[in-house]
Amino acid sequence: MAENFNNIDRIVPMDKNFADWYTSVIQAAQLIMYSEIKGFMIFRPLGWAIWTNIKNALDAQFKTLGVQDVYMPLLIPYSEFVKEAEHVEGFAPELFMVDRIGDKPLSEPYAIRPTSEILFCEYFKNSIVSYKDLPLKLNQWTSVCRAEKNTRPFLRNCEFHWHETHCVFETKQEANDFAKQFLDIYTDFVNNVLDIPVIKGIKTEGEKFAGADITYTIEAMMYDGQALQSATSHFLGTNFAKSYGISYQGRDNKMCLPFTTSHGLSTRIIGSIIMVHGDDYGLVLPPSIAPVQVMVASVLAKKSPDVSDYAHQIGASLANQFRVGYDDSDKGMGYKINEQFVKGTPITIIVGPNDVTNQTVTLIKRTNNQKMVINLTDLSSTVTTLIQEIKHDLYQRADNHLQNNIVYAQSIEEIKTIVDNKQWAWAYFDGSIEDEKTIKNLTGATPRCIFDYDTQEHPCFMSQKPTKQKVIFARAY
Amino acid sequence: MAENFNNIDRIVPMDKNFADWYTSVIQAAQLIMYSEIKGFMIFRPLGWAIWTNIKNALDAQFKTLGVQDVYMPLLIPYSEFVKEAEHVEGFAPELFMVDRIGDKPLSEPYAIRPTSEILFCEYFKNSIVSYKDLPLKLNQWTSVCRAEKNTRPFLRNCEFHWHETHCVFETKQEANDFAKQFLDIYTDFVNNVLDIPVIKGIKTEGEKFAGADITYTIEAMMYDGQALQSATSHFLGTNFAKSYGISYQGRDNKMCLPFTTSHGLSTRIIGSIIMVHGDDYGLVLPPSIAPVQVMVASVLAKKSPDVSDYAHQIGASLANQFRVGYDDSDKGMGYKINEQFVKGTPITIIVGPNDVTNQTVTLIKRTNNQKMVINLTDLSSTVTTLIQEIKHDLYQRADNHLQNNIVYAQSIEEIKTIVDNKQWAWAYFDGSIEDEKTIKNLTGATPRCIFDYDTQEHPCFMSQKPTKQKVIFARAY
Repeated sequence: MAENFNNIDRIVPMDKNFADWYTSVIQAAQLIMYSEIKGFMIFRPLGWAIWTNIKNALDAQFKTLGVQDVYMPLLIPYSEFVKEAEHVEGFAPELFMVDRIGDKPLSEPYAIRPTSEILFCEYFKNSIVSYKDLPLKLNQWTSVCRAEKNTRPFLRNCEFHWHETHCVFETKQEANDFAKQFLDIYTDFVNNVLDIPVIKGIKTEGEKFAGADITYTIEAMMYDGQALQSATSHFLGTNFAKSYGISYQGRDNKMCLPFTTSHGLSTRIIGSIIMVHGDDYGLVLPPSIAPVQVMVASVLAKKSPDVSDYAHQIGASLANQFRVGYDDSDKGMGYKINEQFVKGTPITIIVGPNDVTNQTVTLIKRTNNQKMVINLTDLSSTVTTLIQEIKHDLYQRADNHLQNNIVYAQSIEEIKTIVDNKQWAWAYFDGSIEDEKTIKNLTGATPRCIFDYDTQEHPCFMSQKPTKQKVIFARAY
Repeated sequence: MAENFNNIDRIVPMDKNFADWYTSVIQAAQLIMYSEIKGFMIFRPLGWAIWTNIKNALDAQFKTLGVQDVYMPLLIPYSEFVKEAEHVEGFAPELFMVDRIGDKPLSEPYAIRPTSEILFCEYFKNSIVSYKDLPLKLNQWTSVCRAEKNTRPFLRNCEFHWHETHCVFETKQEANDFAKQFLDIYTDFVNNVLDIPVIKGIKTEGEKFAGADITYTIEAMMYDGQALQSATSHFLGTNFAKSYGISYQGRDNKMCLPFTTSHGLSTRIIGSIIMVHGDDYGLVLPPSIAPVQVMVASVLAKKSPDVSDYAHQIGASLANQFRVGYDDSDKGMGYKINEQFVKGTPITIIVGPNDVTNQTVTLIKRTNNQKMVINLTDLSSTVTTLIQEIKHDLYQRADNHLQNNIVYAQSIEEIKTIVDNKQWAWAYFDGSIEDEKTIKNLTGATPRCIFDYDTQEHPCFMSQKPTKQKVIFARAY
């Protein structure tokens, strides 16, 4: 249904019910529409434009690392999954299986890709001959399908969009350094493009990707204190090379096993944008990826050609520097402003007859609902400043929230109290996978990452083993 | 396997066996790799970069028409197909069906999208309320799956990539004009970006899209005289609106049926690029979409830092205007040049010690294998000229081929002789679908389009009905 933006009340207050706030914002801002199949979302123009901007900004960074884009097929023979035991065990129950074309049964079943790890490995096996072919760094932007029982838009879908980068290197050092460098690219992107602070670290044994030697991660804190894993970068050692028979002729002419890495970021990050920056008016978009950064809305545009002309003159003067949109419709100004607030547009410019007469511009900043009137001559510099202010404000607000809500814990009970209080706990921890399970069962929190190493050893609060590892525990999306 | 570009002989001569030439070029140029499933291709970096450039160039044009991108889910409940009888009849035998997740059977089967027509219709039904919501113009770039018995890379795949644009309008005139305007966008793109001449026209009754009132098409002539339908634009009347219950409140407050259109171009167009421009050396890429327009290859780069430095100085001076690549590997120069020829790079620059000493640049133009030595100071202007020359040469060569091979026919026998001679026939035709079938059965040729209307009437060569319609008949990919 077309949305009625006079009715901003449809957005459930955040502090009343955060989960309901989340879904109400997504609907009100027209990011998605549900399809007939649970967990398969339709991305509406605003939702898809946000993802496209995320993709373009990240992809430009990947290219600086020498990563090349490819496309791997949608379907994978099920028999291929069986080659990597951990892989098939993890994915088998989640696979969407194709057994027939029309009415005709297939001789062997296919699975819709839940990830393309296997296909990249086959590609490497078939295209790498000698050390001269290394490093090889490939990426694709696609959707993948994994069945989920409890689906939530962006956070947990049966079909989701992501990029997956898979790379092959001669040496362990090169591969591991690259995995770290990739995490730095993600961190820089999430911090400076999405204006979201994160905690960087390494996954514990129980949380790392099956098949990885090391999983690097960035974790963001949502408004409700839950963690959202925002991107992961894996050093896979020679595990996949062994399972899939990837080898190359080394510099000494001997056959060698290469080291591989993989890296991914998905549409979950849009959930993070919503839950870190959003407020009771709706979405708040980070200016760097907002499809419209400045919306120029004119009063009674259809009846006042000079107002409409002036609006377009204003827009044109900004269009070289910013992504500008126009609302020339015959809707009321209150409606127009509400619509931009719900959709999270950083700056809304409202243009009326007085502005034409006085050669002024009236701007509203999304983050503080503050209206300001400036001279037309100051427009470009003012918008530049406001965009910078919004970015700064968003990051600072989120960073204050993050820094003020990480609390030291020395026991399971303390972790429980802390996460019940919508905070993150940190603790000295070097426990087993069993310990991780115990903590999860009793508190709902999981180790998000080893985020730091102390200079001195302390007893692990579970195993009592001396450790320098400082680990974040939180409930997570 | 890594390719050995010394062995340019792997490319089958075009005139010996065109079909084998086609597949040998695709392999040698490393555009794709076959996957384990027939008809599902892996796009290697060069193949995907070509498609990405096509996509970016076209998408920029779509945006000028007010088209917005969305994403529709991969899976569609099979029950949705049954709503449009012609639609389900056409697609049912080609559908990849999902009946289970892991081992658990689904309560109703899903199909992998063969097109997203149905989903766009559902979207329109759910989002259009009044005339104020029109026109609505949506697009997506995705892959779709349709089973094919005889698959050929790019031309006929079970999974192929395309864009599909679906639009809704208040009036018949607006919708039909838009369908024609979209065909103009395609024509301009294929002519001026891909340097391929086409014949524009309207599909006959037997060849138009099921469900369309009018199908507009552009048809290109391949080197072997076969036609390739390069893009289609459909005026759908109110057919889909009726079947899927799309309606809106009109200006007079009454409920109305809107008019819809749809438009598509797929990775088949890459087959067209190969078969229109390619030669016995391999691929010839239209400069506007070539991922590397100028490759700078240096002699013994690893042993001669000054040669390599000079090569990068040359590249840097071009990088603002052109897409530049470097080959600094320790391969031989013959190998490097062959590789660029096979991959269709418009201009290869070879840099040796003499060039450093004399401050000269040696360029090779892909289209005529001509080597020229110029002063460094003339580089930018020379490359600009060469790129224009290549575009002009490609178009002219293809256009001469097209214009010289369309022959007037007055009978089925004449059509047969003409298409056996690797040409296109044109004839006055206004026959029935039965007539079209007869012609196809006896000649292998189908009506490609009504490309013109005579000022006077002539008898249709099949039905003898008087007609002004001039129709192209050709064998087609």
